[in-house]
Amino acid sequence: MPIATRAFAATSAEAPLTPYAFTRRDPLPDDVAIDIHFAGICHSDLHMVHNDMGGTRYPLVPGHEIAGLVTAVGANVTRFKVGDRVGVGCMVDSCRTCAPCRAGDEQYCVPGMTGTYGAKDKHAELSGEAITQGGYADKIVVDQAFVVRIPDSLPLDAAAPLLCAGITTYSPLRHWKIGPGSRVAVVGLGGLGHMAVKQAAAMGAEVTVLSTSDRKKADAERMGAKHFLINSDKAAMKAAAESFDLIINTVSATHEIAGHLQLLAHDGTMVMLGLTTEGLPIFAMPLLWRRRSVAGSLIGGIRETQEMLDFCAEHGIASDIEVIAPDQINEAYARLEKSDVRYRFVIDMSKLDHVA
Amino acid sequence: MPIATRAFAATSAEAPLTPYAFTRRDPLPDDVAIDIHFAGICHSDLHMVHNDMGGTRYPLVPGHEIAGLVTAVGANVTRFKVGDRVGVGCMVDSCRTCAPCRAGDEQYCVPGMTGTYGAKDKHAELSGEAITQGGYADKIVVDQAFVVRIPDSLPLDAAAPLLCAGITTYSPLRHWKIGPGSRVAVVGLGGLGHMAVKQAAAMGAEVTVLSTSDRKKADAERMGAKHFLINSDKAAMKAAAESFDLIINTVSATHEIAGHLQLLAHDGTMVMLGLTTEGLPIFAMPLLWRRRSVAGSLIGGIRETQEMLDFCAEHGIASDIEVIAPDQINEAYARLEKSDVRYRFVIDMSKLDHVA
Repeated sequence: MPIATRAFAATSAEAPLTPYAFTRRDPLPDDVAIDIHFAGICHSDLHMVHNDMGGTRYPLVPGHEIAGLVTAVGANVTRFKVGDRVGVGCMVDSCRTCAPCRAGDEQYCVPGMTGTYGAKDKHAELSGEAITQGGYADKIVVDQAFVVRIPDSLPLDAAAPLLCAGITTYSPLRHWKIGPGSRVAVVGLGGLGHMAVKQAAAMGAEVTVLSTSDRKKADAERMGAKHFLINSDKAAMKAAAESFDLIINTVSATHEIAGHLQLLAHDGTMVMLGLTTEGLPIFAMPLLWRRRSVAGSLIGGIRETQEMLDFCAEHGIASDIEVIAPDQINEAYARLEKSDVRYRFVIDMSKLDHVA
Repeated sequence: MPIATRAFAATSAEAPLTPYAFTRRDPLPDDVAIDIHFAGICHSDLHMVHNDMGGTRYPLVPGHEIAGLVTAVGANVTRFKVGDRVGVGCMVDSCRTCAPCRAGDEQYCVPGMTGTYGAKDKHAELSGEAITQGGYADKIVVDQAFVVRIPDSLPLDAAAPLLCAGITTYSPLRHWKIGPGSRVAVVGLGGLGHMAVKQAAAMGAEVTVLSTSDRKKADAERMGAKHFLINSDKAAMKAAAESFDLIINTVSATHEIAGHLQLLAHDGTMVMLGLTTEGLPIFAMPLLWRRRSVAGSLIGGIRETQEMLDFCAEHGIASDIEVIAPDQINEAYARLEKSDVRYRFVIDMSKLDHVA
């Protein structure tokens, strides 16, 4: 029998999110049913809700930073049992047969992965919803191949943002082989940036934070940054030229890109993690002159997400969060638009009882 | 005693190149004196002559695709002897102590390599020239560390362009590990592009040429390309989406870049080799979606240049050239501005007798 689910949903690009009741599918043999305890708010939730990229269908329940407990498992599920602490990130399915899927890079699935919310629901006839619905809800049902285990030492609320922000920064740090001796710059200390600083420092890198002011300097240092640069300080930027192996760029503003390329050493890479919609004014000369690269990176695969959670547990890393109740989502969105959060909003779904 | 040298030089950004007499330094203990037989014309010669990037000093003798015979060697020179067939490319010196220099990547020398022409001459007091003067001349004197051997099987005229064009394409093909099974696209079939096609095919890659028309299709296939795409053909471009591991982009025009990124497969890289002066309108989304990269690459190191010459000799690869006399340089420049050459102009320096 489909599972009654309470949630907060967007009903249009302009309306505030409001309570929404729907059903999840009755668990299939490979499914895990989860009571959602916490859901992080990611900046891409705002983009989707506001239809910034086009194609958003409503009502839409956002949320792809999901942490909770298993309440039921299908007949084929052996890796999880009732009561397990689990997480779900940005994907709930993929083709599983293309080369990236077979390599564990499901996020780069060639036919396209199934997003946790807003994607065509392959099981629509069972759920009654045309699209997948996300984690701003009290329950979710997900195929076991897209469920990860949250280690006991990580609190569920501070672990939730690891499922998107945490893996989005961890994957490029690993792909570009960051370790002891690496010189890593993190542009922007927000939801993504603060995870990048903690993880890169734990990997042994020398971390520098670039920001627009020194308001977050003490935070950056507490998180493990050795240096802090204000990127409007031309003398400091000039002194830092050619000094980084990897720049993790979490900022969407395009005007900053060109100047930041000069900070890369020979064979250095700047990885873009933000969903910018304007063209980046990149000049070929600074790329040629030191064989620099500009790359993009998108979350991470499921196996790597589990590895990231284990790494974070081992190093005592979680997200710095501000926990809110579901009826504060719209206020949180307004604050997030102004980058007014240190460093991630997490919705306490147990508070749904009071409001939905 | 300084060596009397005849050449063609630019005397201003606007004037045609005209005969110019000057002296090369008396060879130092590590120097190799070379009779220049052939010098290729590179598009960057035009940029320098026309002061497109600023900072050009006149009179300027361009030319960094130099092939000739050794006429004398200094006391410390053991690797070369009189009569040897040798080449000189884009560099005549570097700091030799920074990390890239020690790694054999002299082109990325941190304090900066010394360009073959137009750079401050470290031995100005011996040559009488404030700047280094290049290969549109009958003689040159170069430190042995920046001289390479031209294998006997390569004709000196068709080998000359290998010293810049050939290494500029070879180095990224090696750096991005092209081999059997690799899918390589070459954008633009000109001086660089035609070398990239021949080399990538010889490495075992499946090569596709992208061009603005089918005028060069037969040439591309003769050089080893398996496929030919016209990049204004939207249906063909769409069908080719996500199908290349590496795109060698030799085109400076910026408008083509964004569309070409879609052609890259997961983890694919587009390498820019042209000196564009406008910003490239690169969008983050196609980078993120497949972890694609946009990179730059600059010529190659000296050791790698020797390796490239040996590779070309082994595979019977040289440049397709049109040999001209020194008094045809200005006409050749005008034709090069219109891409009217298949595929590289090479100046026969023995003809200097008649005109300078």
